Amino acid sequence: MAEEQRTQSKESTIPENEVFVGKKPAMNYVLAVVTQFNNGAKAVKVRARGNAISRAVDVAEISRNRFVQDAKVSTIAIGSEELANEDGTKSKVSSIEITLER
Amino acid sequence: MAEEQRTQSKESTIPENEVFVGKKPAMNYVLAVVTQFNNGAKAVKVRARGNAISRAVDVAEISRNRFVQDAKVSTIAIGSEELANEDGTKSKVSSIEITLER
Repeated sequence: MAEEQRTQSKESTIPENEVFVGKKPAMNYVLAVVTQFNNGAKAVKVRARGNAISRAVDVAEISRNRFVQDAKVSTIAIGSEELANEDGTKSKVSSIEITLER
Repeated sequence: MAEEQRTQSKESTIPENEVFVGKKPAMNYVLAVVTQFNNGAKAVKVRARGNAISRAVDVAEISRNRFVQDAKVSTIAIGSEELANEDGTKSKVSSIEITLER
């Protein structure tokens, strides 16, 4: 019961200069990264969990090599997060956070 | 003839302290990482390309959190490599290299 207290609106907590990579084609997220740089962002974080981690690396590499060529990878962090499954069990999933900076 | 001089057994060109992550279950590679640390390695590199990148992050996280708890992620590098396809065309693929250090 008490564990419900901390659930705020999860969707709106993604900050502007962050791109969360999911299951869509990589180019969708590349477009989001490029747009943020074009809007004046000095740094953009590309984040992903689980199988999408490979795609996040693609997104960072494509953005940097093809579209925002003055951007560099400033930091990369990996970690583990615990997710609740539908059946109530928990599983650990890896995560990545790549910061591109121009 | 002279070119034969440098050809040593190709299989052994993967340095000892390196684990190249492919399509097998993550635990296979975790075992390789743990074994190298147990054999006295101070640092182990976990490398992967393409879709295996997610698994490489899993391998690093599982090794660090469960088996070699004094190991830390010292560096993470991402990059792009060009691979030749069977039909002669080339495609770019992302890569990752995670260095664990104890």
